[in-house]
Amino acid sequence: MYGEIITIGNELVDGRVLDQNSWYAAGRLTASGLCVNRITSVGDNYKTVSAALKKAVEESHFVIITGGLGSTDDDITNEIVAGALNRPLCRDRQMFEKIMNYVIEKKIEITPSLEKMTWVPEGSIMLNIEGAMCGFSLVEKGVHLYFLPGVPDQMRYLMERFVLPEIIGFYDTLPVMRQRIFKLYGLNEPELAEIFTKLKGKMGEIITGYYPRFPENHITISLRGEDESAVIKKLDRFETEIRDLFGACIFAAGAETMESVVGSKLTEKKMTLSLAESCTAGLISHTLTNVPGSSSYFQGGVVVYSNQSKIDLLHVDSETIEIEGAVSNSTVREMAFGARERFKTDLGLAVTGIAGPDGGSRTKPVGTVHIGLATKDDIFSKKYIFRGTREQVKQNTSMMALDWIRRYINGDPFLSGV
Amino acid sequence: MYGEIITIGNELVDGRVLDQNSWYAAGRLTASGLCVNRITSVGDNYKTVSAALKKAVEESHFVIITGGLGSTDDDITNEIVAGALNRPLCRDRQMFEKIMNYVIEKKIEITPSLEKMTWVPEGSIMLNIEGAMCGFSLVEKGVHLYFLPGVPDQMRYLMERFVLPEIIGFYDTLPVMRQRIFKLYGLNEPELAEIFTKLKGKMGEIITGYYPRFPENHITISLRGEDESAVIKKLDRFETEIRDLFGACIFAAGAETMESVVGSKLTEKKMTLSLAESCTAGLISHTLTNVPGSSSYFQGGVVVYSNQSKIDLLHVDSETIEIEGAVSNSTVREMAFGARERFKTDLGLAVTGIAGPDGGSRTKPVGTVHIGLATKDDIFSKKYIFRGTREQVKQNTSMMALDWIRRYINGDPFLSGV
Repeated sequence: MYGEIITIGNELVDGRVLDQNSWYAAGRLTASGLCVNRITSVGDNYKTVSAALKKAVEESHFVIITGGLGSTDDDITNEIVAGALNRPLCRDRQMFEKIMNYVIEKKIEITPSLEKMTWVPEGSIMLNIEGAMCGFSLVEKGVHLYFLPGVPDQMRYLMERFVLPEIIGFYDTLPVMRQRIFKLYGLNEPELAEIFTKLKGKMGEIITGYYPRFPENHITISLRGEDESAVIKKLDRFETEIRDLFGACIFAAGAETMESVVGSKLTEKKMTLSLAESCTAGLISHTLTNVPGSSSYFQGGVVVYSNQSKIDLLHVDSETIEIEGAVSNSTVREMAFGARERFKTDLGLAVTGIAGPDGGSRTKPVGTVHIGLATKDDIFSKKYIFRGTREQVKQNTSMMALDWIRRYINGDPFLSGV
Repeated sequence: MYGEIITIGNELVDGRVLDQNSWYAAGRLTASGLCVNRITSVGDNYKTVSAALKKAVEESHFVIITGGLGSTDDDITNEIVAGALNRPLCRDRQMFEKIMNYVIEKKIEITPSLEKMTWVPEGSIMLNIEGAMCGFSLVEKGVHLYFLPGVPDQMRYLMERFVLPEIIGFYDTLPVMRQRIFKLYGLNEPELAEIFTKLKGKMGEIITGYYPRFPENHITISLRGEDESAVIKKLDRFETEIRDLFGACIFAAGAETMESVVGSKLTEKKMTLSLAESCTAGLISHTLTNVPGSSSYFQGGVVVYSNQSKIDLLHVDSETIEIEGAVSNSTVREMAFGARERFKTDLGLAVTGIAGPDGGSRTKPVGTVHIGLATKDDIFSKKYIFRGTREQVKQNTSMMALDWIRRYINGDPFLSGV
């Protein structure tokens, strides 16, 4: 069952906006056992959109189209569809009621731009008319067309809630397809490729994929088959091989993230955590708290960007900073200790480093980072050197610091530093 | 002069890899005054690549193709081009020498996968034969085709060094094209569309575009013409109209960001800032410090996720929290005051709120956020209600808080709350 994706918007073909919608849709369709043949991005232009639509109807079983459904002048998808597929625009009764309710509730006049949204190509079925965000579907020559908004959250919601279940329902003779994702941290690409070669000959029909998502590396294993239990059994066996090979470098699987794994482990052990961040300046704290419910184990943190704030807020000894420097094992140890004391937590995690682009020296180049962890009985610290831009150094530091918590609780050794 | 971009790779159509190559190429071509008509992504598949190539040759003046040039089994672009354009593969003398030198230097045997790279479609001209990374170009029916590697760094290097200069050279009668971007915060899409209608009739040949980048909205104005100074003059005039209409809602232009604008303003006024974050949990601090040199105005902050940490670290009165709640104007005012005191800064900025998905109540629903700002003479506070997911509430809060600093320094009123 072949599908394609068409994304519409001048902002896509002139490079202002990175097209994450087609990436998302392609990933979700593939994971559901469907094939995407082509992704096309075109501007808000009658001729090119029209040509892309016609071609898709000729060559595919289903088409996902995003963009151009809003209320502004350049949102002309409805008109183009009407012309290209020869389906005059009709007022949708439900959509009209919805807009009128909005207008009455807000006590405003109906504007031409709102009014425009009530006209859809003949034969359209509205998707999610009850919700705040709408799309519509059409069947043309047996091909299912789904028109979704270009706003990523809205598009994703409609994909998950309406489009994917419907498409999967149409093709229920689909062979079983299962995919697993493993997320790794601490190996570079050549190291990973080298380890991977040991799997040759053990894969059978299993398709493996590898892709970097800085600073992580992801591995996928996929298998198609007629029988679900056989597919799962083969994947289980292969997963064991992979886990044996990569060990503690696999920090998560599937939808898990480093921060969700760290959160689960802290919850499981009933431990609390506080932070002292210098070079990451809140990134670790922000990342940790993207997990709902993180307030049960995360008490808080300090962003001590200046030396004085390290002394004032964490009681780091001014002599330590003077003699060893703010970027040193001694300072990071006192920071971790200070955070643990101030927030009265089981663990105190600290980072200090030089994110760049300025501030580096011969002995402490840009990318030099110290991580420290204070526990009830010990204080650990290590030095790392991360390459890349300011943001990449911050990201790698944040990831490594969180990995310390995961490894500490699991009893695994920390990744080696310099 | 119309061009298109074709990106090749199974990892693109199955959603494993986000296609940043087409985004990059489209942006660079547009900035050079060229038009991109269509972007197509296809898998490593003879039929679909071949169809995309033929269509591009029929409809465009130039085509950028990336991917499938490497040494692995799925790199089959050369063979597909040979078939689709009826140009048999020939051994390229320079490429062969290069590969042989590599083999000799490394003291290895030539492998079939290395050998494969020396065969290119008849009439190909190698790009960057001296360098480590190669591509090639072809002219088919007067259309210029550029084949580049899929590895982003290599692709970008070849684009900048060879492809862009060549294309620009072909079309040196190219009209001038200038684009300006304005970034807005605090208006929703219908409000923006409504204000936009007032510009009708004043645009002349100017093309306007509008696109949301949550939580921001961006407006672009573009103009093509024969004469640079005339184009700039018209854009200047139109920019004045836009700035008059949208006023303080325009927070940045071009490559500026909210955090870079706030940074420039603080630097200009020689003011320092500290933060007290609850629901954003470090996001504001992280965002501010993405600007190199931010340590000159940003002293640090506290992430006070628990009530106790608000009391211990910021000296918020426990009675205030008990009576008014942690999410209240009174608490946020004491937090802002506390941050300013602890870090000895000119400004102390604080946020507290309910990011969700849990923790909301009838009187304080999810999305309720209080922002506070302590200055030498005053303390300001306001309540907002933001919609959306946990991450969206965090992002909106961070943006609004930074916007407060910008508006405070500019003497503009803060955006109204609830």
